[in-house]
Amino acid sequence: MPKKVDHEARRREISEALWRITGSRGLDAASLRDVAAEAGISLGRLQHYFRTRDEMLIFALRHINQLAADRIRARIEALAEEPTPREVLRACLTGMLPLDDNSRIGVLVGAAYYARAVHDATLRAEARNGIPQLGAFFADQLRRAAERGELPPERATEDQAMLLISVADGLASYVLLEVHEPQAAVRLLDLHLANLFGDAVEGQAPAGE
Amino acid sequence: MPKKVDHEARRREISEALWRITGSRGLDAASLRDVAAEAGISLGRLQHYFRTRDEMLIFALRHINQLAADRIRARIEALAEEPTPREVLRACLTGMLPLDDNSRIGVLVGAAYYARAVHDATLRAEARNGIPQLGAFFADQLRRAAERGELPPERATEDQAMLLISVADGLASYVLLEVHEPQAAVRLLDLHLANLFGDAVEGQAPAGE
Repeated sequence: MPKKVDHEARRREISEALWRITGSRGLDAASLRDVAAEAGISLGRLQHYFRTRDEMLIFALRHINQLAADRIRARIEALAEEPTPREVLRACLTGMLPLDDNSRIGVLVGAAYYARAVHDATLRAEARNGIPQLGAFFADQLRRAAERGELPPERATEDQAMLLISVADGLASYVLLEVHEPQAAVRLLDLHLANLFGDAVEGQAPAGE
Repeated sequence: MPKKVDHEARRREISEALWRITGSRGLDAASLRDVAAEAGISLGRLQHYFRTRDEMLIFALRHINQLAADRIRARIEALAEEPTPREVLRACLTGMLPLDDNSRIGVLVGAAYYARAVHDATLRAEARNGIPQLGAFFADQLRRAAERGELPPERATEDQAMLLISVADGLASYVLLEVHEPQAAVRLLDLHLANLFGDAVEGQAPAGE
């Protein structure tokens, strides 16, 4: 195996050690020394892969975002052969919620970075990395839905796409805070899609009547 | 002035010192010693008001949530004499966004608590404190809107009310991350209200056409 691949593989192992600490105790608990211990290597060895804590943090954030993207791609591929745009959107958005161990650690690590990124422009740039592409992908699905007559055409906008991302992200935080059970968050996400797509009234009684 | 009031006033001053540190450097930077220095009092004096750091954190969180609630109440009172339920909802939801210095510090402090609350059940309970009441208030506004024929009646639900809270919270985070300008977040919030209330099509061209 070429040396470069080994290097990347080892960096990924180290970032997984960082996530385990972050997921259980938060990002501030993760010093280079702690991460080295968690990864079962010496501090000197770790510093061979990451010279600074910031370098490690950025790598680990990119890596976890990559895994989240892979997970969402797998969810789309697991759909029926010709999924509707709405099915594609739903698969992506539910993939952003902490519904299982892998996505939960992703959202936990994201929460830790978020709190730090609000005070750190470099991390902030990393944290929002990928959002424009995700927004463009969602907007494309909305346009496809409108073309198929499944969405009111005036709702096939970039703003609606960005709103979808904010909704999923807001719901993900509320699952971590235990405001909502994971399945309630999925229900609220479906409710947002129903509002957006203008689903027909199902005749249920309004609350409180 | 009775002694009890003095005690509370001093505790509020200390919690404001905590927010200033949290707003600029994060919650982990705020030790009892740092907060005492920021408040211009001795550590011993601070410990007269808060025996532990956790006691100080909880008090400061309740205090900032109270200020946010007061700010939202003031926004509602500043509306026209008979605001529509939708105007009331909009005033509350925009009040949750970081649109000025006071609301920005509130959201920054909220971000710091959020990252910590995911690992701490006591803080988690505090962080979600008030959400059920806010949800009930929003659901009540939705029911009023439906009674006035301004909202499809099947949308006057507790779930729609909880979705509104998540949307505002998700957008607030994205303003801190500089994904959205404050005014773009307001625009997306209005878009969500338009989806919810089923606003008539305005005939604008869909994106990309």
